[in-house]
Amino acid sequence: MKKSALNVMKGVDSVKSLNPNLKEQFQKSKKRNFSLKDYVDGIRSGDRLALSKAITLVESNKPEHQMLSQDILEAILPFTGNSIRIGITGVPGVGKSTFIECFGEYLISQGKKISVLAIDPTSQRTHGSILGDKTRMENLSKAEQAYIRPSPAGGSLGGVARKTRETILLCEAAGYDTIIIETVGVGQSETAVHSMVDFFLLLMLAGAGDELQGIKRGIMEMADLIAINKADGENLAKATSAQAEYKSALHLFPPTNSGWIPDVLTCSAIQELGIADIWKKILEYSQITSENNFYKENRKQQNRFWFREFLAEAIQTKFYETKGRKELALSLEKKVVEGSMSSISAIHELLK
Amino acid sequence: MKKSALNVMKGVDSVKSLNPNLKEQFQKSKKRNFSLKDYVDGIRSGDRLALSKAITLVESNKPEHQMLSQDILEAILPFTGNSIRIGITGVPGVGKSTFIECFGEYLISQGKKISVLAIDPTSQRTHGSILGDKTRMENLSKAEQAYIRPSPAGGSLGGVARKTRETILLCEAAGYDTIIIETVGVGQSETAVHSMVDFFLLLMLAGAGDELQGIKRGIMEMADLIAINKADGENLAKATSAQAEYKSALHLFPPTNSGWIPDVLTCSAIQELGIADIWKKILEYSQITSENNFYKENRKQQNRFWFREFLAEAIQTKFYETKGRKELALSLEKKVVEGSMSSISAIHELLK
Repeated sequence: MKKSALNVMKGVDSVKSLNPNLKEQFQKSKKRNFSLKDYVDGIRSGDRLALSKAITLVESNKPEHQMLSQDILEAILPFTGNSIRIGITGVPGVGKSTFIECFGEYLISQGKKISVLAIDPTSQRTHGSILGDKTRMENLSKAEQAYIRPSPAGGSLGGVARKTRETILLCEAAGYDTIIIETVGVGQSETAVHSMVDFFLLLMLAGAGDELQGIKRGIMEMADLIAINKADGENLAKATSAQAEYKSALHLFPPTNSGWIPDVLTCSAIQELGIADIWKKILEYSQITSENNFYKENRKQQNRFWFREFLAEAIQTKFYETKGRKELALSLEKKVVEGSMSSISAIHELLK
Repeated sequence: MKKSALNVMKGVDSVKSLNPNLKEQFQKSKKRNFSLKDYVDGIRSGDRLALSKAITLVESNKPEHQMLSQDILEAILPFTGNSIRIGITGVPGVGKSTFIECFGEYLISQGKKISVLAIDPTSQRTHGSILGDKTRMENLSKAEQAYIRPSPAGGSLGGVARKTRETILLCEAAGYDTIIIETVGVGQSETAVHSMVDFFLLLMLAGAGDELQGIKRGIMEMADLIAINKADGENLAKATSAQAEYKSALHLFPPTNSGWIPDVLTCSAIQELGIADIWKKILEYSQITSENNFYKENRKQQNRFWFREFLAEAIQTKFYETKGRKELALSLEKKVVEGSMSSISAIHELLK
């Protein structure tokens, strides 16, 4: 028996002792489809179908899917965490897809296995525009060493964030050592992604002006590295001067806790220029923050942050599961809105 | 029997039939101190002691105080809402206290009864710096027609907001027809105050520059009126040119739902200049938004917003009231943080 398979069995056993409904679940799911063991073994051996099906369970809102995905996550947990998680953002038009395709191919050439995920809480409206169209990364999506997954459709930012966090764990257990999380450059989702990655890369364009690029100051402040894309041909001079400008702008920000000093590089995804330098920066970051322990501490802080977020959301959801409560809340809200009942009395009535 | 006293009795009666524990509460509190009737009658007749004691109950975290304050609020609810609620913000140094003193005295000269409240969620640290020192508004605090109350000490922004919302209702029931809510110019508390007032006034200084004034773009966007204070003496020319600048800046913001076009005025609280014009603007606003129904609709939206906020907070609080839950949550959180348990399993364990 190989070491990894042994570990899987250990993982499953420890879950078995934790979770009393596992056996039943196990047999039930076996009949229908993949068993828990099938999922865990499949993921651990790098089977893309098992991974994709497990992510689908994580994204599902059906209670039986959630229970099974919980068991899978618990079983694979010992095999997670061994990746570098990289967030990439920038406004539409900055060339994110082309950059990720080029960057991803470079990483594969360096012997890496990469996953590309996406967060787009607006995808409810746009029907998953981010990565929804795999042809946007034609070469990368065909590569054996790359796994591309579109943003989970719809739901709150909290829901999308939970699903993405769990998908990261599944990809790590499947052996992907570099996880790229793409996001649109509009604010809220950047903060969410920043809170689930080790390294945050901001793509910019030269000469577009901050206002035009729609990048908020707060997002620049989160960046570990700014890369000015499309630094080629006639654009090169502009890109170099923008680089200098952003460098001095970064000096104005307060120092980070990571001990890392954010930098500004230029690149051209289309001409495949500057890509290796970006990866070199990420490796440097990884080394410095591993040495000063920030890397680990940051992940712990992130675990704490998301646990609290998800728990608060789950408490609200559970509260309204009690039959009739949602309806009572709405009828009391109506009275409060009309001014015929005080908030405090309505809340008292609802919580008693 | 005067009409107001009759109304009070009606209010008390309707609560009596609503709230079964009222009688007991009534007798209990009578023995010790003020009865519910004493509170309600006192507040309705404009007794400052009754009002102050009721606000102290609202600010208290003791369950018996909260129950009594709930009964008081329910009883006075029919007599609330008949005021204009004005939020005033600006960074320290802009002259808020002097402005409010001058503005308040002007309002009194116009036959108004004013309450000055404050929101300062940081007061935990600064021990209630805002309005804590009544001598800052020496004349106003002596006036019969003015009631000044410092910010409730400490607690979350949500808690401070709830207490302030309820204090507004008590002041309205006590006959104050103009409620001024002061806040420090630092971000979060502005948004809270904006969500509980009819009119939002931003005080600025000429020539200080946005950055220096620490006023965020988002706060300017909330303003119904910007008043450039200290527009006197040598400052006058600078103030006038700042007025023009801010006017054109306001044009860049998207139109509001209120049908009101925000404006920029200059004033000097020390020289008592421009104060009447500011009040005139507020009256104009009040008329326009009453006619187009925004005034009422906005208050309904605010009721809904705060009900949902307070309810969500109350649900969390209630969840952790169950013995041992807080401890279990913390021990599970530790496992999640260390990476030995998945968030979803920890949440499942806590909610089962």
